[in-house]
Amino acid sequence: MQQPRCRVSSIGHKSAFGQPNSASLANFAAATASATVVKQMTARGENSSADTAGGEGEPSPKWQLRYWPNVPGRAEFIRLILVEAGQEFSEHCDPEAIYLDFKCQQKTGWPVFAVPMIKQGDFELGQTATICRYLAKRLGLLPDGEPDRWRADQTCATVMDFITEGRLAFHGRNFYESYFGQEAETRPYIDYFERHRLPKFLRHFEQVLSFNAANWDASGGGRFVVGRRVTYCDLCLLHVLRAAESQFPAAWARSIGDCPRLAEFKAGMEDRPRVRDYLSSARCKPFEGNSMM
Amino acid sequence: MQQPRCRVSSIGHKSAFGQPNSASLANFAAATASATVVKQMTARGENSSADTAGGEGEPSPKWQLRYWPNVPGRAEFIRLILVEAGQEFSEHCDPEAIYLDFKCQQKTGWPVFAVPMIKQGDFELGQTATICRYLAKRLGLLPDGEPDRWRADQTCATVMDFITEGRLAFHGRNFYESYFGQEAETRPYIDYFERHRLPKFLRHFEQVLSFNAANWDASGGGRFVVGRRVTYCDLCLLHVLRAAESQFPAAWARSIGDCPRLAEFKAGMEDRPRVRDYLSSARCKPFEGNSMM
Repeated sequence: MQQPRCRVSSIGHKSAFGQPNSASLANFAAATASATVVKQMTARGENSSADTAGGEGEPSPKWQLRYWPNVPGRAEFIRLILVEAGQEFSEHCDPEAIYLDFKCQQKTGWPVFAVPMIKQGDFELGQTATICRYLAKRLGLLPDGEPDRWRADQTCATVMDFITEGRLAFHGRNFYESYFGQEAETRPYIDYFERHRLPKFLRHFEQVLSFNAANWDASGGGRFVVGRRVTYCDLCLLHVLRAAESQFPAAWARSIGDCPRLAEFKAGMEDRPRVRDYLSSARCKPFEGNSMM
Repeated sequence: MQQPRCRVSSIGHKSAFGQPNSASLANFAAATASATVVKQMTARGENSSADTAGGEGEPSPKWQLRYWPNVPGRAEFIRLILVEAGQEFSEHCDPEAIYLDFKCQQKTGWPVFAVPMIKQGDFELGQTATICRYLAKRLGLLPDGEPDRWRADQTCATVMDFITEGRLAFHGRNFYESYFGQEAETRPYIDYFERHRLPKFLRHFEQVLSFNAANWDASGGGRFVVGRRVTYCDLCLLHVLRAAESQFPAAWARSIGDCPRLAEFKAGMEDRPRVRDYLSSARCKPFEGNSMM
């Protein structure tokens, strides 16, 4: 198996994300403008009441999202939450800098094992599901009430398991190496995932929607993972469903007929105004066809 | 690859964990006493102030933990939190019932994809990290303050990634099948994990301890993942370190010398009175030597 190599670079990326508790947003932007691909994600500009950090009514610094370029990947969960909440964010996706900071563990400050990572002011945070929960709390997308918050937490974790297993199916011979080079050898794993695991995950999420629907009347029930309004967990589920449909189209077509609530949920989520605008924009990166990522 | 088969059983397990919002603890205990392996985990009997559910000062029903028998597995994270908090809990680990409820998705009530699952009264919850956070909130083992709570959340997720990757190393040829039958073929994956991934994870957690230590004076700093007192995340990290040491002893011995804070952390956690008593008791199941689970 190939061994990771840590290349030395002098692009000075550490002045961007690397200084603990000191780098100002202005310094960060200046330092990264030339070295990283900075894409300003123009959002609608609505400020939610949650869009102030540290109280005192001051507007928060903009969200920054660090991730590999040109793929939806795990960052898409985070993007969809920021989009639904009408938040502006910038993307920082220079592969060389990510390679050094994360693959080679040269990042300083609060340790983050891998991208995606978000940053706002001096606060940095990693791990996809953690980031999703954090943003949900800041942006009004947590469920109401303790039981539903824990159920959303659990369901979000199962969404992450689904995408992890789906990715593994494309890397059956070696989960550390690219799909390209193992296309033929990983075919049995894809077949197994399509026959057994994908339908099982879809049935599970159908049951989740049914459980929630049973708690509400016909007018408002069953449209969300928990409760009667959209939460971060709905946006996480939306992404994994879109990934599954795109990456396993035949298995999706065979299975989705058994999951009518899930089909309706997906259509409803894709039709939310901000989500719809995002999905039809050039900002939304296409799936590559070689993993769930 | 082998296809999962759903066997039919008449053990009536669904009356145990299967009825949504109706099965009382008394009914549950009666229904499972003959069919499942019920091990009463006698704890010290101290009641923490958190040991009341729903307010009103009534004592909570006992915690119930559902998991596969005879292995520490992912349930060990949960056991250690309950042990540290001095909570009594019972284990329900009949493989047939778990197979039907989870592998065959016959469980009713709130959908849970896989064990481990906890239950208290009518409330059921799945996903290891979710359960750990939930118990931490109920039992006073969350960190103080928002930033540290999110950092603990992130670190707990990285602990779960570590154990997942470690398990995969033992199942390199086929991650759905037993280690036995792929011992020789998975050897390169174990070698790779030992050379590259295990040291990287250990270095990461060493950095986490160093970051926290930098925020405190020498007397109290660096002993925990966040803050100055034990939280759920310390117990999660303890388990994955013990699993890594047990399952990859040579790689552990080569790497731990570079991580002095981590070595000190592990020794300190293992020496906490309740943890020490648990680890030296028959209740603590040994690692099997064929995965991180």
